[in-house]
Amino acid sequence: MQFLKEKILAEGKNLGNGILKVDSFINHQVDPLLMQACGQELARRFANSGATHVLTAEISGIAPAIMTALFLKLPVVYARKTKPVTMPDQVFLTVAPSHTKGRMVELIISPEFLTADDRVLIIDDFLASGATIHGLVRLSQAAGATLVGIGTLIEKSFEGGREALAHLGIQIESLACITSMDNGKIEFSDK
Amino acid sequence: MQFLKEKILAEGKNLGNGILKVDSFINHQVDPLLMQACGQELARRFANSGATHVLTAEISGIAPAIMTALFLKLPVVYARKTKPVTMPDQVFLTVAPSHTKGRMVELIISPEFLTADDRVLIIDDFLASGATIHGLVRLSQAAGATLVGIGTLIEKSFEGGREALAHLGIQIESLACITSMDNGKIEFSDK
Repeated sequence: MQFLKEKILAEGKNLGNGILKVDSFINHQVDPLLMQACGQELARRFANSGATHVLTAEISGIAPAIMTALFLKLPVVYARKTKPVTMPDQVFLTVAPSHTKGRMVELIISPEFLTADDRVLIIDDFLASGATIHGLVRLSQAAGATLVGIGTLIEKSFEGGREALAHLGIQIESLACITSMDNGKIEFSDK
Repeated sequence: MQFLKEKILAEGKNLGNGILKVDSFINHQVDPLLMQACGQELARRFANSGATHVLTAEISGIAPAIMTALFLKLPVVYARKTKPVTMPDQVFLTVAPSHTKGRMVELIISPEFLTADDRVLIIDDFLASGATIHGLVRLSQAAGATLVGIGTLIEKSFEGGREALAHLGIQIESLACITSMDNGKIEFSDK
């Protein structure tokens, strides 16, 4: 998506070690009009997926997931990282390493909102190593649901997430695919 | 807002001790179409506020804030509860008690995205005791910004948040105002 790539080039910061700072429009400050455009495009790409739920992880997955779900007219479930008092005692829980937090985090969903009847579209901000998305895949599988697609705003293809998720045999989409962050640059694939 | 009240009566659960479970449409599963309608209504009420930024707190404030900001065509800043590696060392930080977590949490914003030139509209899911919103008020004041309004989806008027924030002398709006949760019921004010 050209507009997203231009935003990344204009405002994204390559902090080194593969860390891309997009705090000015995705991760701390959010540009709702950009998110709406991204959600609309992800919804278009998954229009025929037959999804019944969009699944994401708090925190930074919420904005792209809700905008995608708005266009698909589907509910969003966001996996919690701490179990709130309002959640039942019996939950689906998995752990995944957090790139930005430098430790393992829990991902928790309630069986109330994801069942074996569901077809799940996973939406997140980044596809990097795929570790968080793998966690969401495990939660979806624990619920017995069918995975139908994975969509993200930004892919860092050099971290191998797409290959790690290939065995799932489902559609994987990203709106901006970064192939290299070497030497302080940000390079995109043409697709 | 009648539609939100009906949703609370249909799907909200009074868990006692003033805890309202709205996990099926706000706090874990999110209904994007409801959120869009709520955002549109909050945007209408603050259309003349002159706001330059919408400020909220992760996690459950993000959905209503982004939808309000979408209609106002403003950027959202969501206060982080843990400082990501992408944030500068020098930040605005305050602590606030978390009702659902039963402990103090940090609220952190980067000086990159809120300055003395800003006019801040605070949006959150709940106005209860007002503790989280007070935290956002302190962050806004630390940045030297001007507060112009506070908007929430659900107010629990019996917890006194509106009175606690009255000294700010700014417009406070909620879309559904619960006056009592005694005896397992959920009662609304007429307004």
